[in-house]
Amino acid sequence: MTAVLFFGSGRGSGKTNGGRGSRVGERWALGVDLGGTKLEVARVNGDGKIRDSLRMATDVDGGPAAVEADMARMSRALWEKAGSPPTGIGVGVPGQIDGKLGIVRFLPNLGWRDVPLREDLERLLSIPALITNDVRAIAWGEHLHGAGRGIDDLVCLYVGTGIGGGIISGGRLIEGCTTTAGELGHITIDINGPPCTCGNRGCLEALAGGWAIARQAREMVESDPLAGERMLSLAGGLLEGINAETVAKAAASGDHLSLSLLEKVGRALIAGCVSLVNAFNPCRLILGGGVIEGVPDLIDKVRIGVKRSALPASMANLEVVPGLLGAHAGPVGAASLALALSPRDGK
Amino acid sequence: MTAVLFFGSGRGSGKTNGGRGSRVGERWALGVDLGGTKLEVARVNGDGKIRDSLRMATDVDGGPAAVEADMARMSRALWEKAGSPPTGIGVGVPGQIDGKLGIVRFLPNLGWRDVPLREDLERLLSIPALITNDVRAIAWGEHLHGAGRGIDDLVCLYVGTGIGGGIISGGRLIEGCTTTAGELGHITIDINGPPCTCGNRGCLEALAGGWAIARQAREMVESDPLAGERMLSLAGGLLEGINAETVAKAAASGDHLSLSLLEKVGRALIAGCVSLVNAFNPCRLILGGGVIEGVPDLIDKVRIGVKRSALPASMANLEVVPGLLGAHAGPVGAASLALALSPRDGK
Repeated sequence: MTAVLFFGSGRGSGKTNGGRGSRVGERWALGVDLGGTKLEVARVNGDGKIRDSLRMATDVDGGPAAVEADMARMSRALWEKAGSPPTGIGVGVPGQIDGKLGIVRFLPNLGWRDVPLREDLERLLSIPALITNDVRAIAWGEHLHGAGRGIDDLVCLYVGTGIGGGIISGGRLIEGCTTTAGELGHITIDINGPPCTCGNRGCLEALAGGWAIARQAREMVESDPLAGERMLSLAGGLLEGINAETVAKAAASGDHLSLSLLEKVGRALIAGCVSLVNAFNPCRLILGGGVIEGVPDLIDKVRIGVKRSALPASMANLEVVPGLLGAHAGPVGAASLALALSPRDGK
Repeated sequence: MTAVLFFGSGRGSGKTNGGRGSRVGERWALGVDLGGTKLEVARVNGDGKIRDSLRMATDVDGGPAAVEADMARMSRALWEKAGSPPTGIGVGVPGQIDGKLGIVRFLPNLGWRDVPLREDLERLLSIPALITNDVRAIAWGEHLHGAGRGIDDLVCLYVGTGIGGGIISGGRLIEGCTTTAGELGHITIDINGPPCTCGNRGCLEALAGGWAIARQAREMVESDPLAGERMLSLAGGLLEGINAETVAKAAASGDHLSLSLLEKVGRALIAGCVSLVNAFNPCRLILGGGVIEGVPDLIDKVRIGVKRSALPASMANLEVVPGLLGAHAGPVGAASLALALSPRDGK
């Protein structure tokens, strides 16, 4: 283990008992958010509340074995403190998975390929494990305990460095043929658009994802240094230092160039969301992720734009809302999926 | 009734008994394809076979009451001939519906708005009725008895004058919040593209639907009459006579201008299908409709293009195939949905 264990303060969607033991027989599961910089393991109850959580830096250099060992150590620490065993462990990963086989197919941030994470965790912890995509876990968490509570048809779009999605239809998480459904960052919105990291052109992510915002900002600053002064100074004078956060900060101070870029990003998000609304006819479109949190105005922009451009019948009952669970949606969703695994759930 | 009743020859996905009475106790339902020019009512058995069918011109001028009366007359004729009552009637309509309320919200070809079709048919026939979108009915028909048999995750894209879709996920037809899911013609693929009839810009339908192909062909012929000679002569010298069929015919004879247009249509279909594959991760993508039937090469183009541009994980098990039920997919699908309504189905 390469970093200190941080015991969380029992945050989540409601009150906590300060990390003390669960009530006898209270069902809980471990929910894991495996990020490129941070690894979080949480103890989540059946009501979606985080009772306790641990965080550490992700040991990227150590590879899968080191990260799995850290997950297992944190899990055992939470388990010991809880006093009763979890029903299982759910892991949300920011990449492509084969949920049926429990294999991480490709995790770009960590450079993992074909890691049998479920098998490894089940061997290390002797409890049932479930592997899913991070935004699918978030969508499930928001559906059960957050902005999508009681809503059986919803789309969750997370706009961070990349863009991911989760779709719930008729109360079920859409998994797809090989459990990779919901790659909503890779819907084409501009057939003549810029190249995406995926090899295609004009993907939603290639226009509105954090990395694409950074790329466009740098290009704009480079081609018009005078107009780009504010962004450049916020990035310490380094062109490569400009990222989506720089753009959000500059825009908040009224900078024209960054505002015009965010206008373009808004248009791209609207086009993508119109596609999603027409295709899925959701009751609720939940927006979250770093870019949305950094530029919350985008939610209003999308709400108005979708109202203007989606089919009237497709948006008849639509609400466009921000996610409610914030950073905790991932562990809550992953744990909730793991709780649903348990035979005691009666599902 | 304004037209002669044509008794079908018992076509469909298998053998027929030439329209003779059903076996005692054999379950069947009425499946209706309500088109802008043609109205078809079919007797469909539980195995998806059309035992008998009737067709007539759609009485567009007569409005909903006249068309409903025609449906009821044809239904009774089939019922009488069958010798046993149907379990219900399913109607697929080329427009927007509220499936929960059984109301046709908007049928552009017939100019219908807010017609309580289910209530009207139940009153006229005293059997349970179900109203659905035509391509959703087709998707269900192909899933149960056609190109999607045994496949629980599929997308059906029908490219006719307009473009419609149906999505089946985990063996369930995706309905959405207000039963309008699957408007796949109205996903944005070109944020800077031409206006669509829906009010948005750059929809898949606005680039690859039959009406958009006709529009683009006329524009191309007008701006280059010499290169457009072949299309114009096929349309009897009338610019307004050029339609998607003209383009297909001209292309089949090696005409350069129409081939370059179909190249562009192919690119648009690929972009749309890549979005659908990345969003839904289907095992099978079923293509059908007049444009695909007129230019079957488009299936290969889409197959190759999707293979090149979709996420590897999203298309891992994907097959791109033509629909198998052809013109009968609609009635078969609508009737199959009506059969599923019946309590005897055990669902």
